[in-house]
Amino acid sequence: MSQTTPQSIDLLIEAHWVVPVEPHGVVLEQHAVAVQADKIVAILPIAEARGAYAPRERVELGDHVLIPGLVNSHTHNPMTLLRGLADDLPLMVWLQDHIWPAEAKVMGPEFVRDGVELAVAEMLRGGTTCANENYFFPDIIGATYRRLGFRAVVGLPVIDFPTAWAKSADEYFERAIEVHDSFLGDALITTTFAPHAPYTVSDESFERIRVLSDQLDIPVHLHTHETAHEVEDEKKKSGLRPFQRLQKLGLVNDRLIAVHMTQMTDGEIAACAEAGVSVVHCPESNLKLASGFCPAEKLRKAGVNVAIGTDGCASNNDLDMFGEMRTAAMLAKAVAGDAAAFDAAYALRAATLNGARAVGLEDRIGSIEVGKQADLAAVRLSELETQPLYHVASQLVYATGRQQVTDVWIAGRRKLASRVLVDMDVDAILGRTHAWRERIAAHA
Amino acid sequence: MSQTTPQSIDLLIEAHWVVPVEPHGVVLEQHAVAVQADKIVAILPIAEARGAYAPRERVELGDHVLIPGLVNSHTHNPMTLLRGLADDLPLMVWLQDHIWPAEAKVMGPEFVRDGVELAVAEMLRGGTTCANENYFFPDIIGATYRRLGFRAVVGLPVIDFPTAWAKSADEYFERAIEVHDSFLGDALITTTFAPHAPYTVSDESFERIRVLSDQLDIPVHLHTHETAHEVEDEKKKSGLRPFQRLQKLGLVNDRLIAVHMTQMTDGEIAACAEAGVSVVHCPESNLKLASGFCPAEKLRKAGVNVAIGTDGCASNNDLDMFGEMRTAAMLAKAVAGDAAAFDAAYALRAATLNGARAVGLEDRIGSIEVGKQADLAAVRLSELETQPLYHVASQLVYATGRQQVTDVWIAGRRKLASRVLVDMDVDAILGRTHAWRERIAAHA
Repeated sequence: MSQTTPQSIDLLIEAHWVVPVEPHGVVLEQHAVAVQADKIVAILPIAEARGAYAPRERVELGDHVLIPGLVNSHTHNPMTLLRGLADDLPLMVWLQDHIWPAEAKVMGPEFVRDGVELAVAEMLRGGTTCANENYFFPDIIGATYRRLGFRAVVGLPVIDFPTAWAKSADEYFERAIEVHDSFLGDALITTTFAPHAPYTVSDESFERIRVLSDQLDIPVHLHTHETAHEVEDEKKKSGLRPFQRLQKLGLVNDRLIAVHMTQMTDGEIAACAEAGVSVVHCPESNLKLASGFCPAEKLRKAGVNVAIGTDGCASNNDLDMFGEMRTAAMLAKAVAGDAAAFDAAYALRAATLNGARAVGLEDRIGSIEVGKQADLAAVRLSELETQPLYHVASQLVYATGRQQVTDVWIAGRRKLASRVLVDMDVDAILGRTHAWRERIAAHA
Repeated sequence: MSQTTPQSIDLLIEAHWVVPVEPHGVVLEQHAVAVQADKIVAILPIAEARGAYAPRERVELGDHVLIPGLVNSHTHNPMTLLRGLADDLPLMVWLQDHIWPAEAKVMGPEFVRDGVELAVAEMLRGGTTCANENYFFPDIIGATYRRLGFRAVVGLPVIDFPTAWAKSADEYFERAIEVHDSFLGDALITTTFAPHAPYTVSDESFERIRVLSDQLDIPVHLHTHETAHEVEDEKKKSGLRPFQRLQKLGLVNDRLIAVHMTQMTDGEIAACAEAGVSVVHCPESNLKLASGFCPAEKLRKAGVNVAIGTDGCASNNDLDMFGEMRTAAMLAKAVAGDAAAFDAAYALRAATLNGARAVGLEDRIGSIEVGKQADLAAVRLSELETQPLYHVASQLVYATGRQQVTDVWIAGRRKLASRVLVDMDVDAILGRTHAWRERIAAHA
């Protein structure tokens, strides 16, 4: 970084602030991030960067903070097409009379593809660069994300009843292995096993998943302890709480991604911390469905890896990770009875690096570090809604709206430029969305 | 509305949807709102309106829903200049070590004026057209709102310690009456008494307020039952819960605007309903300061008038009434354990007509009805974040971001046009905001 010839690189992003997330709590001022191909190669003061590098492209972000792209650690993005179809209903009425019948009518490759495409457009406009996906037709899901150049962790679904995706346990597993193998070595797509939940998956299937997730070295992504009702039902059936049953089945380990977890004993929190379980907190879904309150601050304090997810658009109703970070931070304080709980820097970490760790990508994404993938989001803080500005992390979590995201890169490729989706046809997406709306509303 | 000569009017707004709020739950399609001077004179189908009226200005909103301007029923807008100054701190550290010292250094007419101006710009960009204000220097506050053409209900502060505004109880009352009188008959500015809270105001002052609020016929706007700690403290001091003390003092009536109310017995809820008390729910402030959970659904069910406020930007950190509606609706469900609680139509009503009722303006604002003031907001729903669209009210509450507000009118005057603040100098506001930031940060 001195008087030698400037090094040729692909991209130099110069920002007023860079929040790398790792090291924790750091805000770098007037720093640049140098990118070569898909990777971050340097983080250094702008003045130094200008001497050190001859970039093919330079992006100046004088009013912006550059952050790692957000990791949405639990979502069902095909369901974006069901956004707002049925709100303000008791959980079982919502599921049985609205969501499941709608899905039964429309679920298939086209629905999945078009839902994911709408979701990708929304996620990019909100600074999200990775989705931990959980839905049927993972082949189509993975192919759609790959085509759109969006990073995704694709769940391989297992559930004890037939769907349009598979008719039997054996078929779920056959298709899971097939999809897993088809994405091996892919630059953007990885997989998890996604058994729906303890109450819809048998011990036998869980045992197969344990063996296969060991062999394939992929995480296990499931909903559990979402409601008190679920916990009580499991106790009646097996005599165990769902978490105890998962322990007995050998699934409580550092590959487990446990989503929701609103009902937790102190012992279960300690067991999660000890085993290295990741908990995905979906605060807005938990509120909107009246599921319960996840003890997010207790989990954080115990050393559990807490990530954040939006859940699907049928129960949120958006894919706004800025909103979700904010709700997570605020709600954790009220639940803990401590205004100092789950602070802004931690909320940002939960929405980035902790998510990366949950899905097994902590070596590749989730922070702005040399050697990691250039998955980045630029957020303009000069809007009057984020002025005055005293503390960058606090402003990002408590005052910033996702519409202040101006630019997004995934693996070094610009996906959003000054609010424009550079390689997506928004009118075509809206046209297909409208056609689905007509078809679904006709059944509703 | 037939073959006669079209009637000349000032403004015709044609919208894809109109949600008038009253009647409750109604969504009008392809309707127009006719405005003459400051008032709504008709609401009718677009096709009819085109025959009936010859407007001087026609606004076509083909992708939009027109709603009543939102009423922020509790805020401290001068504190917008303290946005994000001190977050993630225990309540008393936050107040005693950060907010109060900062206020002590800067509070005065210029601070109040510049804070309100920044807030007005933010509120207009988010569809809010009326603020129930609670801060010192109500003369400056009222004058600033009036100058900016923004509707405000200005609290006349009373607190048992000296501030830059007044030094003694007598001075608080003298100045209160003076400010009240100065705004009598104003088209946009009305007043309330704003005793800070039971724990900072003596029985003697409350008794004066009771007499004066009767005489002047203005509401009484106060914080109470914000935390369990506050309730316990009052019981130790007076042997009564704060609400009981207010009952004893004769303040529990239909002029009372009780803000926060996170701690309520069923008896207190019934008493509020019977007396016609309005409760202002500030869900995000309550979460962020870990104050407690307002039983918003129980209040609604009991027939209490529930309004919504953002609280000040030092504890939220925004003036986003769309966000606040959404948090109110979601949180109420989780607190009530019922996903059907506090539905979208009610959340919108709480953020509009219930707010108008709380501040004594239900005859003038809060709904789109003939004879009411033309305080209106247009929201563009064609953004991909609000597609597909199944139900308008649900989409407004659960998926819409405030940046989708495109146009705002107050008393028939356009204040925001296609996202542009038509009569405010944003650069000048940002310049003053930055200057305050430098001054305040130097003390912090």
